[in-house]
Amino acid sequence: MSGNTFGKLFTITGFGESHGPALGCIVDGCPPGMSLSEADLQDDLERRKPGKTRHTTQRRENDIVKIMSGVFAGKTTGTPIGLLIENTDQRSKDYTNIMEQFRPGHADYTYLQKYGVRDYRGGGRSSARETAMRVAAGAIAKKYLSGRYGIEIKGYMAQLGPIKFDAFDWDQVEQNPFFFPDASKIDELENYMDALRKEGNSIGARINVVASGLMPGLGEPIFDRLDADIAHAMMSINAVKGVEIGAGFESITQKGTQHRDEMTPEGFLSNNAGGVLGGISSGQDIRVSIALKPTSSIRLPGKSIDIKGNAAEVVTTGRHDPCVGIRATPIAEAMLAVVLMDHVLRHRAQNMDVSVSTPIIPASTE
Amino acid sequence: MSGNTFGKLFTITGFGESHGPALGCIVDGCPPGMSLSEADLQDDLERRKPGKTRHTTQRRENDIVKIMSGVFAGKTTGTPIGLLIENTDQRSKDYTNIMEQFRPGHADYTYLQKYGVRDYRGGGRSSARETAMRVAAGAIAKKYLSGRYGIEIKGYMAQLGPIKFDAFDWDQVEQNPFFFPDASKIDELENYMDALRKEGNSIGARINVVASGLMPGLGEPIFDRLDADIAHAMMSINAVKGVEIGAGFESITQKGTQHRDEMTPEGFLSNNAGGVLGGISSGQDIRVSIALKPTSSIRLPGKSIDIKGNAAEVVTTGRHDPCVGIRATPIAEAMLAVVLMDHVLRHRAQNMDVSVSTPIIPASTE
Amino acid sequence: MSGNTFGKLFTITGFGESHGPALGCIVDGCPPGMSLSEADLQDDLERRKPGKTRHTTQRRENDIVKIMSGVFAGKTTGTPIGLLIENTDQRSKDYTNIMEQFRPGHADYTYLQKYGVRDYRGGGRSSARETAMRVAAGAIAKKYLSGRYGIEIKGYMAQLGPIKFDAFDWDQVEQNPFFFPDASKIDELENYMDALRKEGNSIGARINVVASGLMPGLGEPIFDRLDADIAHAMMSINAVKGVEIGAGFESITQKGTQHRDEMTPEGFLSNNAGGVLGGISSGQDIRVSIALKPTSSIRLPGKSIDIKGNAAEVVTTGRHDPCVGIRATPIAEAMLAVVLMDHVLRHRAQNMDVSVSTPIIPASTE
Amino acid sequence: MSGNTFGKLFTITGFGESHGPALGCIVDGCPPGMSLSEADLQDDLERRKPGKTRHTTQRRENDIVKIMSGVFAGKTTGTPIGLLIENTDQRSKDYTNIMEQFRPGHADYTYLQKYGVRDYRGGGRSSARETAMRVAAGAIAKKYLSGRYGIEIKGYMAQLGPIKFDAFDWDQVEQNPFFFPDASKIDELENYMDALRKEGNSIGARINVVASGLMPGLGEPIFDRLDADIAHAMMSINAVKGVEIGAGFESITQKGTQHRDEMTPEGFLSNNAGGVLGGISSGQDIRVSIALKPTSSIRLPGKSIDIKGNAAEVVTTGRHDPCVGIRATPIAEAMLAVVLMDHVLRHRAQNMDVSVSTPIIPASTE
Repeated sequence: MSGNTFGKLFTITGFGESHGPALGCIVDGCPPGMSLSEADLQDDLERRKPGKTRHTTQRRENDIVKIMSGVFAGKTTGTPIGLLIENTDQRSKDYTNIMEQFRPGHADYTYLQKYGVRDYRGGGRSSARETAMRVAAGAIAKKYLSGRYGIEIKGYMAQLGPIKFDAFDWDQVEQNPFFFPDASKIDELENYMDALRKEGNSIGARINVVASGLMPGLGEPIFDRLDADIAHAMMSINAVKGVEIGAGFESITQKGTQHRDEMTPEGFLSNNAGGVLGGISSGQDIRVSIALKPTSSIRLPGKSIDIKGNAAEVVTTGRHDPCVGIRATPIAEAMLAVVLMDHVLRHRAQNMDVSVSTPIIPASTE
Repeated sequence: MSGNTFGKLFTITGFGESHGPALGCIVDGCPPGMSLSEADLQDDLERRKPGKTRHTTQRRENDIVKIMSGVFAGKTTGTPIGLLIENTDQRSKDYTNIMEQFRPGHADYTYLQKYGVRDYRGGGRSSARETAMRVAAGAIAKKYLSGRYGIEIKGYMAQLGPIKFDAFDWDQVEQNPFFFPDASKIDELENYMDALRKEGNSIGARINVVASGLMPGLGEPIFDRLDADIAHAMMSINAVKGVEIGAGFESITQKGTQHRDEMTPEGFLSNNAGGVLGGISSGQDIRVSIALKPTSSIRLPGKSIDIKGNAAEVVTTGRHDPCVGIRATPIAEAMLAVVLMDHVLRHRAQNMDVSVSTPIIPASTE
Repeated sequence: MSGNTFGKLFTITGFGESHGPALGCIVDGCPPGMSLSEADLQDDLERRKPGKTRHTTQRRENDIVKIMSGVFAGKTTGTPIGLLIENTDQRSKDYTNIMEQFRPGHADYTYLQKYGVRDYRGGGRSSARETAMRVAAGAIAKKYLSGRYGIEIKGYMAQLGPIKFDAFDWDQVEQNPFFFPDASKIDELENYMDALRKEGNSIGARINVVASGLMPGLGEPIFDRLDADIAHAMMSINAVKGVEIGAGFESITQKGTQHRDEMTPEGFLSNNAGGVLGGISSGQDIRVSIALKPTSSIRLPGKSIDIKGNAAEVVTTGRHDPCVGIRATPIAEAMLAVVLMDHVLRHRAQNMDVSVSTPIIPASTE
Repeated sequence: MSGNTFGKLFTITGFGESHGPALGCIVDGCPPGMSLSEADLQDDLERRKPGKTRHTTQRRENDIVKIMSGVFAGKTTGTPIGLLIENTDQRSKDYTNIMEQFRPGHADYTYLQKYGVRDYRGGGRSSARETAMRVAAGAIAKKYLSGRYGIEIKGYMAQLGPIKFDAFDWDQVEQNPFFFPDASKIDELENYMDALRKEGNSIGARINVVASGLMPGLGEPIFDRLDADIAHAMMSINAVKGVEIGAGFESITQKGTQHRDEMTPEGFLSNNAGGVLGGISSGQDIRVSIALKPTSSIRLPGKSIDIKGNAAEVVTTGRHDPCVGIRATPIAEAMLAVVLMDHVLRHRAQNMDVSVSTPIIPASTE
């Protein structure tokens, strides 16, 4: 594989399968001297945790993270931070019926073609279970970015299937199981999900993530542009099929006069760029939007083949999220945090001594 | 910067500014024994070249590439391939008026904030001029992928501003300056662009790229998923604001029964996945779609600030593409080629010995 | 830190301190389909284990490794292999007396200067305790190299302080606690070490490592030459102060006629190159020799300073190896295995299709 | 190959063969705002240049470097610096006689086995000609380290074959073609080389390099220790067979009381560590020593084989250095500079905010 490390200076390297004994992650490159304890990581883990409501998988995992190294006397030491989460609620037998079949829309077929062998229990390494570790690692990055630079990262669900928000209120986001910013839509969401679950089907979603309080200057053109690394990070999350920065696909029909964000001494007049110009942060909010596909693990039968190439009908039982987007908000936040953290370190490596006489323009307020 | 290298095993490392003496690129990791000459690279360079029609920038560059190393007796030797393209039509004086101003929507402001200094001539390193080298390097990857594995990569413009194609015909794509697949729309495109140029404005576009003939197995989960690396590559192209794989943002409103691509012994029944499942190629076509923003360099005045922070009105003269999307097709193809090439090498490093008894399912035909 | 990963395709990433709860390592990039169990790793761990004889530290660690992921049904799956070894015999109180002092010759001073904080318990991350994980990871590489290619890696102690071997016999190496190839010298070694321990002092050593059965072609010039990566790997081992390949420092006084290894159809006539020509393996044995410094942790008092910069006299109690070289043989073997494994993968990525009409010359027999 | 990049944040990526049109290098990651011109690079290139005395190869190359990018208005911009040196004195016909033979001690055989094809003209990519680019790139690092931090890097020849220095005087090093620190030995060196050249043979050498003025804290344990990266860099130089840090192989026979460098408030009492403790710089001088083998290209006939595996007698004509060590001093300095530069950037990325109350101990004076 050798694709289990993300980042250049602030790196996260993970291991672990859905039904193995534990998930692990090594966070390397964290600056020393930051106070850190398990409690700092647990909040976001709770936000992502399965089994909290009837709308997510009924697998019950406590997702308690242990810090195995890199912290001494309550402070990071600059050495690698080992993280461990034990799996406690595996039911491998749920999967024996798919040992010899490929679930359509799943990685079953591609893993077998690539490696010649696969761990069929819950998808093995391809399971979104590994995202728990992203969240834990991301919480370290979040804490540093916030404490040292005042950078805050927040996400929300912008759309679930056909349901979009009308009003937007950050304060609502943490008040409902969907991370939805519009309280008036929660009933509609609940009903939609109840019907969907009854139907045995699943649905896609859109998650938006915003980082505010950035300094201008993050991002390493040409290839390691800030937005390129963000796109990489987001598309590495299970089920993500699209990534937008700022105006995203709206840009196609925009004219130059409309898209370019005019600047005044009082601030930018808009943020179509999504906070990134030429691959470098402008100081405006980073605005990212991602599309998550509907879960392929559904109990409605689908056409497929078995490992001998014969036609087969697949029904996925097990315990699954009918909308993976519901638990995706903290994951997307975590990945954005890891990217920004990496670029903060990269930026100061090269440009620590830069001082600019030009004033920094305020970000636009939205 | 240190972000000027892309790829892990097949790497491209570039240098050069818009108005410097030359652009250069080092392509490392190319397998030995492939016949290669400048002519192999020149075709795609011609497709990207400025000044071919009235719809693109009137800067006249021959974009003649020289191979400086890595080829002996007509064959690649496995050593790094040095590429060089001289700049011949710089007019730096066009830019003296923006020395002390920031063009809105441009990297002027962010480069200065990051580096404390900027090469204002034509955008310096932030200019899309560097994409010439991506195209040259991508042509090497394309040649190898095609010759060794039968993998073909082709792109087209799917939308320019409001204009979409009705009929789709691959054969039309190379018959017009827009890489547009629908001959019946060319007049409309020409008229639209003429009006836009007269107006002094610019417009966005959508480019689609398709790779066909892939083996299953390319991609390195978790973080170096094939689609994650593709998203990274695409978002690293100037002006790109969004990336989709397969159904992309359509996935949001799809149900699981609709999105999951069912499989039969005769092939997949659809390709919402865009050829990637769990971050690994399935053998279906890789389908990528990108959004390019409208050029920010337009001659309609815009609000901005100068380097002292005072309000300023900016008018960009110089020579610019009113729709950067028009020349983006070969660039997007090149980046996809580089990603696939890198993953072909990575895959065989680890999995050269894998043999699978399961038959490979044919790709769906579209 | 961000220096806790080694390798490019076959990578090992470690965490853990001397007196933390556990050591961990993630081995990424291992080819799938290889049978693997904890027992495969335990042999080499036993060879490195402390406390086996009176000549090494009396810290008692069982060094039992657990495989946490990456193996299913007894075979590697191609996904990352998580390894964990719990620390069971920490005695942190031994170190409270050095909390505010720097042990001369130790990393105490440099870690504090770098990170502003240090874990003083047993040296924290700077302790050679982390080498247990190198040995475990190296055992995976060894197993693959041997099973797939017949490459074997073996090391021995060539010198302990003033004592060199007269006769050389591979069969003796595993028959004594020193990995010494000359049975006639074991008494002398035992007596030397007993006297040294009584004196409270420590001593340096030379370890040689040999890899045989290699194919020609491993190594990536220019900068990732096989010997360059070996030198990197060896110098990354605690206490190593010198690395030689082949004739090493003897080359200084050799003439060209003497040094160049002449070739005949029956084989090379010598191996001054140590199996590497131009950074690429020749098919001869890889011959590496390293110098290990004497342990700085000794109970004879030494001049130092405290954390306020005042003069201090330091006496190191705790439990330490009077000759770190004694347990270094399996560590050096492991690091050589990891380098070769990485280069096997890198080589086949680029050059899988290379076929050469020139016959391979047999290695010289020594 | 894909081994043509060195460094993590300050990276050098090279191309070019001995008898190709040019050598090139891309230096990425240089901080912006440093004044830089070709003249800054030319001094060290002159020191390495062939053909200056009768003791080095008679190939006449001017080695004039051109800066192609990354510098604007006399200052680095933070974007990649492209470097180019044209080859002007290739005589490829000298090599037609070895087209079908392998020169013993050369990379001819290994390159062919690895790549299935080789550029036989002057060794192609395996020629030490590429080291010109290391010197040019190293000069950039040297200038930054000196100007920003007062770090100075100097090397000298410590031994040529049997001839060592008696007296040591830095001021002599640049006064003779050998970089030898002892004026009283120059006649002996001249005579030795004259006799060697008459004989048609070659000889090895030892080069020492010293970096002074470092801050404590450079180096990233575990695997990217400062000394490990230095060993990597040094062993990547053509003909190097051994690397020592500080006491090096002397450490084998040293006792702990002798090796550990005691510390007092007035400074370290010795420097057996060579300025690196636990992989991190201590602030003392970095002391590195390398062994270079004798050139294998000699005109005394040697046994070898041809490309069909038949026995052959090889005589190397062409123009070669009878002691590659003579021109190696600036190369070794350059590589040390690149490593230190990279680690300065890496260190400040993670530890920019670290402030330590413990005073820095003065380095020992030698």
